[in-house]
Amino acid sequence: MQMSQLVLKTLREAPSEAKARSHQYLLRAGYIRRLSSGIYSYLPLGLRVLAKVSNIVREELDSCGSQEILLPALHPVEIWERSGRIKKMADVLMKVEAKSGDFVLGPTHEEAVIEAVYQDLSSYSDLPATVYQIQTKFRDEPRSRYGLMRTREFIMADAYSFDSDQEGMRSSYSKVYDAYNKIFAKMEIPFEPVEADSGAIGGDVNHEFMSPAEIGEDYYAKCSSCGYRANIEAATRGSKDADAQGVGSELPELLYHYTPEAPGVEKAVEAISDLGVPTKAHEMLKCLVAIDGDQRLVMLLVPGDREARVPSGMRLLEDPEFERYPYLHKGFIGPMNAKENSIYVVADLSVKERSHFATGGNKAGYHVTGAVLGRDFQVDEYRSLVVVRDGDPCPRCGSALTLIRSVEIGHTFQLGLYYSSILENARFTGPDGQQYPYYMGCYGIGVTRLIAVIAEHFLDDRGLIWPVSVSPYQVVVVPLGAARSKEIEEVAETIYSGLLKDNVEALIDDRKLSPGVSLADCDLIGVPYQVVVGSKSLKEGQVEIKVRRDGTTTKMPIEEVPTRIRELLGRSL
Amino acid sequence: MQMSQLVLKTLREAPSEAKARSHQYLLRAGYIRRLSSGIYSYLPLGLRVLAKVSNIVREELDSCGSQEILLPALHPVEIWERSGRIKKMADVLMKVEAKSGDFVLGPTHEEAVIEAVYQDLSSYSDLPATVYQIQTKFRDEPRSRYGLMRTREFIMADAYSFDSDQEGMRSSYSKVYDAYNKIFAKMEIPFEPVEADSGAIGGDVNHEFMSPAEIGEDYYAKCSSCGYRANIEAATRGSKDADAQGVGSELPELLYHYTPEAPGVEKAVEAISDLGVPTKAHEMLKCLVAIDGDQRLVMLLVPGDREARVPSGMRLLEDPEFERYPYLHKGFIGPMNAKENSIYVVADLSVKERSHFATGGNKAGYHVTGAVLGRDFQVDEYRSLVVVRDGDPCPRCGSALTLIRSVEIGHTFQLGLYYSSILENARFTGPDGQQYPYYMGCYGIGVTRLIAVIAEHFLDDRGLIWPVSVSPYQVVVVPLGAARSKEIEEVAETIYSGLLKDNVEALIDDRKLSPGVSLADCDLIGVPYQVVVGSKSLKEGQVEIKVRRDGTTTKMPIEEVPTRIRELLGRSL
Repeated sequence: MQMSQLVLKTLREAPSEAKARSHQYLLRAGYIRRLSSGIYSYLPLGLRVLAKVSNIVREELDSCGSQEILLPALHPVEIWERSGRIKKMADVLMKVEAKSGDFVLGPTHEEAVIEAVYQDLSSYSDLPATVYQIQTKFRDEPRSRYGLMRTREFIMADAYSFDSDQEGMRSSYSKVYDAYNKIFAKMEIPFEPVEADSGAIGGDVNHEFMSPAEIGEDYYAKCSSCGYRANIEAATRGSKDADAQGVGSELPELLYHYTPEAPGVEKAVEAISDLGVPTKAHEMLKCLVAIDGDQRLVMLLVPGDREARVPSGMRLLEDPEFERYPYLHKGFIGPMNAKENSIYVVADLSVKERSHFATGGNKAGYHVTGAVLGRDFQVDEYRSLVVVRDGDPCPRCGSALTLIRSVEIGHTFQLGLYYSSILENARFTGPDGQQYPYYMGCYGIGVTRLIAVIAEHFLDDRGLIWPVSVSPYQVVVVPLGAARSKEIEEVAETIYSGLLKDNVEALIDDRKLSPGVSLADCDLIGVPYQVVVGSKSLKEGQVEIKVRRDGTTTKMPIEEVPTRIRELLGRSL
Repeated sequence: MQMSQLVLKTLREAPSEAKARSHQYLLRAGYIRRLSSGIYSYLPLGLRVLAKVSNIVREELDSCGSQEILLPALHPVEIWERSGRIKKMADVLMKVEAKSGDFVLGPTHEEAVIEAVYQDLSSYSDLPATVYQIQTKFRDEPRSRYGLMRTREFIMADAYSFDSDQEGMRSSYSKVYDAYNKIFAKMEIPFEPVEADSGAIGGDVNHEFMSPAEIGEDYYAKCSSCGYRANIEAATRGSKDADAQGVGSELPELLYHYTPEAPGVEKAVEAISDLGVPTKAHEMLKCLVAIDGDQRLVMLLVPGDREARVPSGMRLLEDPEFERYPYLHKGFIGPMNAKENSIYVVADLSVKERSHFATGGNKAGYHVTGAVLGRDFQVDEYRSLVVVRDGDPCPRCGSALTLIRSVEIGHTFQLGLYYSSILENARFTGPDGQQYPYYMGCYGIGVTRLIAVIAEHFLDDRGLIWPVSVSPYQVVVVPLGAARSKEIEEVAETIYSGLLKDNVEALIDDRKLSPGVSLADCDLIGVPYQVVVGSKSLKEGQVEIKVRRDGTTTKMPIEEVPTRIRELLGRSL
């Protein structure tokens, strides 16, 4: 492609809303243009990267036996009501109320895919099957960020597996899991699969594929000792040696303190200390009340200085619901009356590490100090309930965990019967003629996000540096001073057309701009190899090949260019 | 691909909502599944056809110098307000009111493409440029029909050209116009480009590409004498020899009749006849009042038995507007007072063919008879104002026109300055440093509709018959009775893997069903060539190649299959 013909004009400055360097470069180099906040158009260069990324995904998913389909963006609202996700995902759903019906713009396609395939997967003999699509998704993101990193309209490659039993599901899962590893490796993206929480998608086992990045919005916890890796929402914290603090010293009395203006840990710490009992946040017990899957009340106990992580399958009690439980005084809840009110008590593992706590007094306006574990309150179950922090003990080996800032680039879920138990079409006929629910898996890669992630990983002060596998073009021919020298222009044209004949995806900068501008533009655009035709080398019958990634240049006779380019692209002659 | 692995189950019966045979077959053969009215999922076979159709479009548009981009589906409502189409297209727009903003789901992308490219086409030296996308569109269609023929969510290949002057625009237009002709020819679709009306898109010259079909919802008029072809909305009617009827006989008096309950032609004809003046619909003059681009009142006169076609650039007066013109009595309007009220009178060409008419009396409740052309009313301009009927005279040569039922498969528009004069970003800097508006063209092909159109053209009583260029697979290997014969199974497998090695897109029916079911399914699916392996031929070392389109079968030795298939696919060895 001749750059003079390409719909592209590099910009000196990126619009001020672009904070991340990858975003600035993608705008400046003419890959994308912003239509609205979190909504982008792909210009020819951007579309070519998108196509390359999509095709890598396609190749690997095809190779693992998955079949490509295409589902609609418009989903009748009924299928979202049936699955219950119309409420569960209300925050991000975009809805259309049209004369022809009410629709949800699909942010994910579990409901829709079941409707699409259940007739074709109606018998045990049709299973297993995995289908995928590369399709546009819509989410009402409160904050779109970093260009293609977090947008309101984006392209996802989402796959769905259907099996007749759990073992089959695990096998289908591992095929896609392996394909994901290959996909990211082909794109040269640094990444790690980590254990993750299932969130609104549902299901049990699942992994997030995280790519470490400074502009990441997520963290995962990593133990360099045993290799444990988990998303911050799923990561659990081990316990330190018990009885470390407080335990063993003389046990204090349980004392009530009148602290009417001090609900919550922060105010309580101050109020209790003001009343003459010096207390710190980590010496308090935060008590949250949740409802589990069986509609039972559960009290969650975490140290006052830690953020609680509500286990999946539970949800916190909402304000109006407190009225039903007169013994729960919001802001002043303690665990001392849990047993008499049949509340199941789950404590974070670190609660074991202290003998006594300050906590709510179970009367409006009161806190207590000296609530002793085992004497004043009991714990039914210990598990990890806090959001992990740098340095927390690894739940597997106890070594210190490190938190790593990162971007989620893929997510795989073993859904099990999560949707099949709700949606009546998610059924197949077994060998015995009976109806059984599918064991499902679902899998997603943010295709457009990958463009931002790759761009962010591979850049320098001069611009983008695409890996060959996703670069819009493989080689750019750069005649320097073609405006003044017919010879330079002709040599460049000859090299360019030779490359095209060799099926190399080549660009030529035929814009006749100054050498400085031309080289700067080519560096900015980030095509991995540049063939530079300049007057000095040309006098010796030579040109330079520059490798964009490391900046190395090699002079060589013109006739050697095709061979060298083939070598660089790893192609046989 | 092994059919046992394919996500596909052929259906004996199509769902009752499928009326067109193509729609029934696409459902029965597992190409598509309905999610909601006018909203479909594409299963693996359907997705493959979609990919082939898209790639043919892509190849031809790339070849004519157009560059692929991708625009968002979500458009901020502001750009639609600025263009005025938020009202003009209100009927079909789907809207999203989200927390992050108000959006229109793009039914077409004139506004969005300007926002995407204006920075990159900011100078005369950046022009001409044509960009296109293959992207999902949304329309709130009141009636979705015939499966993929008319849907609420569909894929369109829409192109947009940008030029600095009209001549450039015409040249860009003709490149895309030629590409469209090649695209449809490659798909073997019968079609004709016809002159068309611009509707809500705007602009002047434009063509529709119409494919004749029994299930078509449109008509175009065709003159087999001179080759005139125009969409029914754009087709004009010539005039017959004048003075044929009524003219020359004694001229009647202008008489007023009290017909209070009889506004409109149908009732008026009855009421006037009841009053003793036998009158027929074609002897009446229908008077419509319109507003032209300069906000002038225009009276449109057509014979009472003809449907009027409001010329583009004009719109009919709306009911509340009549109040402003006390001399216009809706339901009783005649042309006799036009001159005194400065109304410009445009009459259909056929009005010349009669000397006098019955028409409105210009008083509420009154009609007249004997309104003589030239005596009682004047005509300022004659043009074609009626919707063309079978047998009407051709506007070019006067021969009888034929109406042809058809489906619109593409549309090309010379927009001129239509959008550029409204949207301020649609500007470039000329060589003199001044700002000028783009001369634009826009072009659309209904990609998913093409699947329905091709299917409808190529089918028989047994199922679909794809042209090779768009067929999901090129060849299907059909072992008959593989369940009982290991030899048949093995020969079929050998042929199948040989085809794959030759890069033939091959299916094999390895489902071990009865020969009848297997053959019926393969006919239904419509892959163009079948290699049938049966016990009888196999005894002679032979198999049969069946051409699906004409049903011919040829026996040949197994080893000749690869050569024969290559020949059939038109490929060199």
